[in-house]
Amino acid sequence: MDVKTYMQQVGRQAREASRATARASTAAKNTALLAMAQAIRERRDELLAANAADVADARNNGLDAAMIDRLTLTEKSVEAMAQGLEQVAALPDPIGEITDMKRRPSGIQVGKMRVPLGVVGIIYEARPNVTADAAALCLKSGNAAILRGGKESLRANQAIAACVRAGLKAAGLPETAVQVIETTDRAAVGHLVAMPEYVDVIVPRGGKGLIERISKEARVPVIKHLDGNCHVYVDDAADAGKALRILENSKTQRLGTCNTAESLLIARPVAVSLAPTLCAMLGRHGVAIRGCEETRKLVPQAIAATEEDWYAEYLAAIISVKIVADVGEAIEHINTYSSQHTDTIVTENYTNAMRFLREVDSGSVMVNASTRFADGFEYGLGAEIGISTDKFHARGPVGLEGLTSQKWIVLGDGEVRS
Amino acid sequence: MDVKTYMQQVGRQAREASRATARASTAAKNTALLAMAQAIRERRDELLAANAADVADARNNGLDAAMIDRLTLTEKSVEAMAQGLEQVAALPDPIGEITDMKRRPSGIQVGKMRVPLGVVGIIYEARPNVTADAAALCLKSGNAAILRGGKESLRANQAIAACVRAGLKAAGLPETAVQVIETTDRAAVGHLVAMPEYVDVIVPRGGKGLIERISKEARVPVIKHLDGNCHVYVDDAADAGKALRILENSKTQRLGTCNTAESLLIARPVAVSLAPTLCAMLGRHGVAIRGCEETRKLVPQAIAATEEDWYAEYLAAIISVKIVADVGEAIEHINTYSSQHTDTIVTENYTNAMRFLREVDSGSVMVNASTRFADGFEYGLGAEIGISTDKFHARGPVGLEGLTSQKWIVLGDGEVRS
Repeated sequence: MDVKTYMQQVGRQAREASRATARASTAAKNTALLAMAQAIRERRDELLAANAADVADARNNGLDAAMIDRLTLTEKSVEAMAQGLEQVAALPDPIGEITDMKRRPSGIQVGKMRVPLGVVGIIYEARPNVTADAAALCLKSGNAAILRGGKESLRANQAIAACVRAGLKAAGLPETAVQVIETTDRAAVGHLVAMPEYVDVIVPRGGKGLIERISKEARVPVIKHLDGNCHVYVDDAADAGKALRILENSKTQRLGTCNTAESLLIARPVAVSLAPTLCAMLGRHGVAIRGCEETRKLVPQAIAATEEDWYAEYLAAIISVKIVADVGEAIEHINTYSSQHTDTIVTENYTNAMRFLREVDSGSVMVNASTRFADGFEYGLGAEIGISTDKFHARGPVGLEGLTSQKWIVLGDGEVRS
Repeated sequence: MDVKTYMQQVGRQAREASRATARASTAAKNTALLAMAQAIRERRDELLAANAADVADARNNGLDAAMIDRLTLTEKSVEAMAQGLEQVAALPDPIGEITDMKRRPSGIQVGKMRVPLGVVGIIYEARPNVTADAAALCLKSGNAAILRGGKESLRANQAIAACVRAGLKAAGLPETAVQVIETTDRAAVGHLVAMPEYVDVIVPRGGKGLIERISKEARVPVIKHLDGNCHVYVDDAADAGKALRILENSKTQRLGTCNTAESLLIARPVAVSLAPTLCAMLGRHGVAIRGCEETRKLVPQAIAATEEDWYAEYLAAIISVKIVADVGEAIEHINTYSSQHTDTIVTENYTNAMRFLREVDSGSVMVNASTRFADGFEYGLGAEIGISTDKFHARGPVGLEGLTSQKWIVLGDGEVRS
């Protein structure tokens, strides 16, 4: 079978299975998730052996250490995978929720019911734990899933897929409700993202290159997460202690995450007093400063920032620093250079806080809080599909709800339109 | 200037203006809308003259009567346009609404704020009243708009655009917040739908051909409205009086609207008693019956339905009729053949009603109500951008909210992540 025919068969099966997952009871979905967790525990040695073969191949093919690290399963990470499935089982079922019912002058009652999107395609790199995680999130939200993991993790993905199928079977759900692509042919991705008749949304989880390629080729909606160029703006009415604490946490708690701050803006009236202190704190954490001209006068260790620095997501011990006139210039700068991920203002001034909240055009906008809070678990979503840098459908951290939609429902008693 | 350069300039200006419309106060937006209405009233004779020239050309070019009818403005329709602007001014402002604020264990408060999508492109046929309507809906929802109307209405559209600009100016908003494309070059549409850097969403308002073409070419999200193949399912537990009333209204109140019923399903246990009565009523309204074999035994005037009939949106005095075993087969049939627009069940049985509501995968699903209620005004939205047959972002009747998104906001007091 050629890859196109194969993918169309997978798509057709997913569309068919999505009808069953959409109407599946909460109990059936949870039974499947718990049975998947059990199967993963029971077949742990099998999973580890499959993964060991993947890892051996990856080493022979010269994959770098970071990729091998993400690829490798351990007894602990297999147990974490099983626990992850149990956690998703414990989340409230989003499907069927009825909201906003209102009686209209005609007599009908109108409101909304939450429903699955249908078929979700998830494309990810060689991280086998994503296979179990993605399967769980799609099933709990009533969707069928087509999963395409990095080719280096094929054996482990197939072993996990077998556990997922065992769980679905145990709950009386179609085993095609979660399909893991069996070919490593790259053309499979091209077909997956271009079958609107079978796939309702694509969620790419991986690097910027992967996501840009998929966005370009996709013929269906994509929930995409590009870069995180996050800002901390220290207002002229900032509390100095909060500024120091929030900047330290936003920039230095973890350097490589998308919600890490990459740029610091300081209001001119407090720059003389605060820029040296803030930059000295960053220096103690080994963070290099790339500053505007004014910054460099106050912070001698800063090197000159270029235009590219204002756009940069360093994911490293570097930060760009700019002195701005006021909250207005800060907002202007952020809306020009930020990646619309997460930006925070440190201020005690009510009007500046409200203006920042309203005018900064990003997925998460914060007052007096660390950018590191931009995360599905911190926001209370219970699970995270990803963090969207789009505006359409879902912005910022996306939970199970991001894989659902709302249809209108009308409850009548024989009403007709006049 | 070539058309691509022109469209990019329009796009750049719209993106720039969208920052001003996003932060515009409710008062400024309403001032602009009321000033537009005033300008339209004051320049009525000018608008009518521009339109008369359009209509004369259209007649010379042999446009059909229905198109000329939609193209033609009258004193009454110009007044209706002005009143439409006033009605949008009277609607609540969706922007800035804060919802779902919850305190998290970390101390932060997390919730959502409603924000505009940014730049909305609206593509429509030769109906000049849509120019004013679309401008109003985009502005009220805080978006900048790029409007492209049918080439036959160019003169009237430009005259209306001048009134729109006058209104924007009166409110201190950039005149580029609403731009009406000045070229009739068809290539302009191709560019408009393929500038993700400048346009956030496209709303095509027109026939199926236009919408299919745009969906195929678009590089940005499209809120699309394809066909309305709506079903009335008369359950075995239906009240006969409600069935008759709802079917009559759904099919015969207006034949040519997208929420008109095109297919009737009857549960087998009540087919002998109800099919003849229901079809006789349709016959009195001049509606021709295309029935399945069983229907034809009960309704001699029915001609045989083909597979295509189950898919058909007739927009005419024709209906397809099928006898089904029960609510399960009805749902199966609807999910196979319907266009996911609007479907209704007539039943007194609670369990069948709930099952139909939950399992029918359409934008509007109804119990004991006419499909004709699927409409933004009937649902209480105040205005309607269109009726979406998509699942992503917005389903069914789309009001101002469909042109908005929600960002996350976090209110802290110096919290950091541990």
